[in-house]
Amino acid sequence: MSITVVGSVAFDSIITPAGRRERCLGGAATYFALAASYFTPVRVVAVVGEDFTAAEESVFIARSIDLTGLERASGKSFFWAGNYLQNLNEAQTEQTDLNVFADFNPKIPDAYLDTRHLFLANIDPVLQLRVRQALPDTSLVCGDTMNYWINDHREALLRVLPQMDVLLINDTEARLLSGESNSLRAARKVLTLGPRALIVKHGEYGATAYFSPDLFAPATTPQHPFRSPALPLEEVVDPTGAGDSFAGGFFGYIASQPTLTPSVFRRAVFYGSVMGSFTVERFGTERLQQLSREHIDARFELLRRITHLDPDHDPH
Amino acid sequence: MSITVVGSVAFDSIITPAGRRERCLGGAATYFALAASYFTPVRVVAVVGEDFTAAEESVFIARSIDLTGLERASGKSFFWAGNYLQNLNEAQTEQTDLNVFADFNPKIPDAYLDTRHLFLANIDPVLQLRVRQALPDTSLVCGDTMNYWINDHREALLRVLPQMDVLLINDTEARLLSGESNSLRAARKVLTLGPRALIVKHGEYGATAYFSPDLFAPATTPQHPFRSPALPLEEVVDPTGAGDSFAGGFFGYIASQPTLTPSVFRRAVFYGSVMGSFTVERFGTERLQQLSREHIDARFELLRRITHLDPDHDPH
Repeated sequence: MSITVVGSVAFDSIITPAGRRERCLGGAATYFALAASYFTPVRVVAVVGEDFTAAEESVFIARSIDLTGLERASGKSFFWAGNYLQNLNEAQTEQTDLNVFADFNPKIPDAYLDTRHLFLANIDPVLQLRVRQALPDTSLVCGDTMNYWINDHREALLRVLPQMDVLLINDTEARLLSGESNSLRAARKVLTLGPRALIVKHGEYGATAYFSPDLFAPATTPQHPFRSPALPLEEVVDPTGAGDSFAGGFFGYIASQPTLTPSVFRRAVFYGSVMGSFTVERFGTERLQQLSREHIDARFELLRRITHLDPDHDPH
Repeated sequence: MSITVVGSVAFDSIITPAGRRERCLGGAATYFALAASYFTPVRVVAVVGEDFTAAEESVFIARSIDLTGLERASGKSFFWAGNYLQNLNEAQTEQTDLNVFADFNPKIPDAYLDTRHLFLANIDPVLQLRVRQALPDTSLVCGDTMNYWINDHREALLRVLPQMDVLLINDTEARLLSGESNSLRAARKVLTLGPRALIVKHGEYGATAYFSPDLFAPATTPQHPFRSPALPLEEVVDPTGAGDSFAGGFFGYIASQPTLTPSVFRRAVFYGSVMGSFTVERFGTERLQQLSREHIDARFELLRRITHLDPDHDPH
């Protein structure tokens, strides 16, 4: 089933130890949509400016991504410039021009009203809640957020968290949101804030999923956490978009499956790791544009082999 | 088969956010020996001073650890004081008194000359090499080192590395030793320095094993790396000795098995993670003194469940 994603479509200028790119296609909704498109149809709700041309549009079209919900506004698209020269794990932001994104008020096309799977990328939690409420027939809602909303817009964030089934954040955000430094206690605290599952991303060390007992229907026995390491990579060219690509692989796989079981959830975390690992191998969305499901599944199998005790034993 | 470990037996004073302990039993050889003792007989080569009494000795005796190689010297035992108040992942050293350890010249008892499994804990690489050469019948040698030897005694270290089958170090040490910031390239570089396998420990994020093709006999196909996350823990009371406990669980399990296969190696990494996770739950060696193989195997099973795609599927 298709996923609707609401978030940013942007231009990024990126400097990393491997080189630089000027004004390449970026934004959370872009990375998410491209990654998820290998698993399921994707619909985008976002706003761009007049600098978004047929060249950028063709990247989405090539992956059959539905742009009915892409609003064209007068002015320029969201622009971000960052560098990773000091720290490949965390960008230093050099410039952020919100441009048309400053007045972003997501408009849901009628054709999207049957949305069952909704991804709320990292935007103002007030907008996340508005979109969530405009789509009452969703069966599964995943969302992201960031330090800025946690620190400065906590009340609005606390209102939308109970509307999310799965929250995806990183270690620092989990600590900030919970006020707990211990990872396990931080996760438990976040689960009391509303989401029925939490995925904490550890960058090059992978991700851990934590579950509320009521995530799966019918209710299962209490679920242990699930930890997936990331793949060891020869070279990380550009970490931009890794987290959104993780979310796209994760949610795309879930939306492609008939029901959400613990086994599907675990495989979805693996697919998230796989899509994140592809993204960072090239600048921007370059790698995400050129994949095939065969490539993706081969890397999924590699991740299974490097994490499982009996790598040659495939239960399927 | 039994393991001989050479390293420090010491007293530690430790301050962590959870509290403090004065002069508790510590040292790399102590943690290693206690952890390994749940899998296989262990023999210790170390030196202690007159402050090492029957109380400390009884900790080893209770685990049937062979102290024939424990030299008693006049003076005081190695003493270390550290605190983890700022950073639970890395101690700030407040005091190091080498005492009798300053003149440590490992003496191998005749009864140890049939040693097949040797663990060279973190000591001067000159001594590591001397011990290695005094035990020519070893079939598997594992070793540890630290920043100080990598930076200031590199030549001596480079002479002993080819004598190790498995080197266990952490991320920082792997980067220092290789001069590479990328984890995978760092690991490949370290493998060119001699060891036939490398385990890089990531603290709370687990560990990754890398292999030379000639580690296993008969030679196997090239082995992918193996990654084991660490267990999510409710509380980390005292991280001291986690790495040595990992090494003890890892090598203890290997020594207990008839042959070293890829599957045994992977399970050994899991047992390493398990023993490290027990150690940090209490101060010093408190937890390591009170375990049973049933506790250990239950936690091994838990680690399998939180890392495997099909947790209820046990291939055994």
